[in-house]
Amino acid sequence: MKRMFDGSLYLVTDRRMAGSRPLAEVVGAAIRGGVTCVQLREKTCGTREFMEQADALLPMMRRRGIPLIINDRIDVALAVGADGVHLGQKDMPLASARRIFGSDRIIGVSAESLEDALAAEEGGADYLGVSPIYATPTKTDTAPALGLEGLRRIRAAVKLPLVGIGGLNRDNAADVIRNGADGVAVVSAIMKAPDPEAAARELAVEIRRYRPPAED
Amino acid sequence: MKRMFDGSLYLVTDRRMAGSRPLAEVVGAAIRGGVTCVQLREKTCGTREFMEQADALLPMMRRRGIPLIINDRIDVALAVGADGVHLGQKDMPLASARRIFGSDRIIGVSAESLEDALAAEEGGADYLGVSPIYATPTKTDTAPALGLEGLRRIRAAVKLPLVGIGGLNRDNAADVIRNGADGVAVVSAIMKAPDPEAAARELAVEIRRYRPPAED
Repeated sequence: MKRMFDGSLYLVTDRRMAGSRPLAEVVGAAIRGGVTCVQLREKTCGTREFMEQADALLPMMRRRGIPLIINDRIDVALAVGADGVHLGQKDMPLASARRIFGSDRIIGVSAESLEDALAAEEGGADYLGVSPIYATPTKTDTAPALGLEGLRRIRAAVKLPLVGIGGLNRDNAADVIRNGADGVAVVSAIMKAPDPEAAARELAVEIRRYRPPAED
Repeated sequence: MKRMFDGSLYLVTDRRMAGSRPLAEVVGAAIRGGVTCVQLREKTCGTREFMEQADALLPMMRRRGIPLIINDRIDVALAVGADGVHLGQKDMPLASARRIFGSDRIIGVSAESLEDALAAEEGGADYLGVSPIYATPTKTDTAPALGLEGLRRIRAAVKLPLVGIGGLNRDNAADVIRNGADGVAVVSAIMKAPDPEAAARELAVEIRRYRPPAED
């Protein structure tokens, strides 16, 4: 089924954090380190530049079989042929998004509460970004932190894959998995790292500690 | 043919200029005054709010047979069922836009030079926004003013309908038509007017002075 994917180590981009390094360089290193999914988030540039950023990432992601998820912009996702979109609560409503994006592509939804999570599952989301687990300086317009307890409550209520996001790094990634998340999404822990490959590898180790590989 | 439309008095929205008045109120008055086409431009709000603005305008526009054009965001246009999109030079390239938006809907392109105009005609645009005719405080990132001479040069080179934009109002609207434009696009001349219906009516009179109605 095309809509299944591995979101266990999910990188959300932020070019500002990459400093002088081209985004594709940081993302490429992160993929070598073990990132399993990349969400391209561009909140300030024009549509054409957003597409150019996606075009710069897609070939290497295709080669490695890593899905590219576009934040918010279904038009960009359709135009570049991305694997999915991620929708926040102020982005397009899920029903409209599914109608124009098609049934065979990934749509993830940010859930900032149990109610969001239940609505997104009911509406046919493919995964939830449970957000924010902890307070974070990356996004300033977010809801109050859910904490591990909020994550557990959502885990108990929905069957969808859950990707935790917000203030996650190698020191707390394992906690998030242990409390019910299927994946850990990070921004600064990789984007700001002097060695993004090593940072991704360390995170992947933490995540795998509580996710034993499937048996043959 | 569905892609033909009357862009002779083309309103581009700017909510900031509407002051405390709801956008739908100003647009409704402008339509009563004779606006023939409305482009919804929202550069700062989220996708959901953009859709809500479009949803608020569409019913009255449908009743009057006035097309709604969405600035930049093909995803929003697809989701709300708008008649067209308008693309700036930093928005989605025309070929990608046509592919995902379909062949039966309006795609307009901003032409800031003769080269832009020729490329957009070659690429299958339905009309050109010739921009800016005059310098304007509404948009700060525009190319140098084309003036009436620039408009005439584009008129001589392309067959597409031309809508002039940039610094246009009732005092210079007729000049623009006389120099080859098929329509006049305005922002502040209607959005900021204390009486948008009267402002639109005065503009429509100016435009019609040089556009005799078709004979029966």
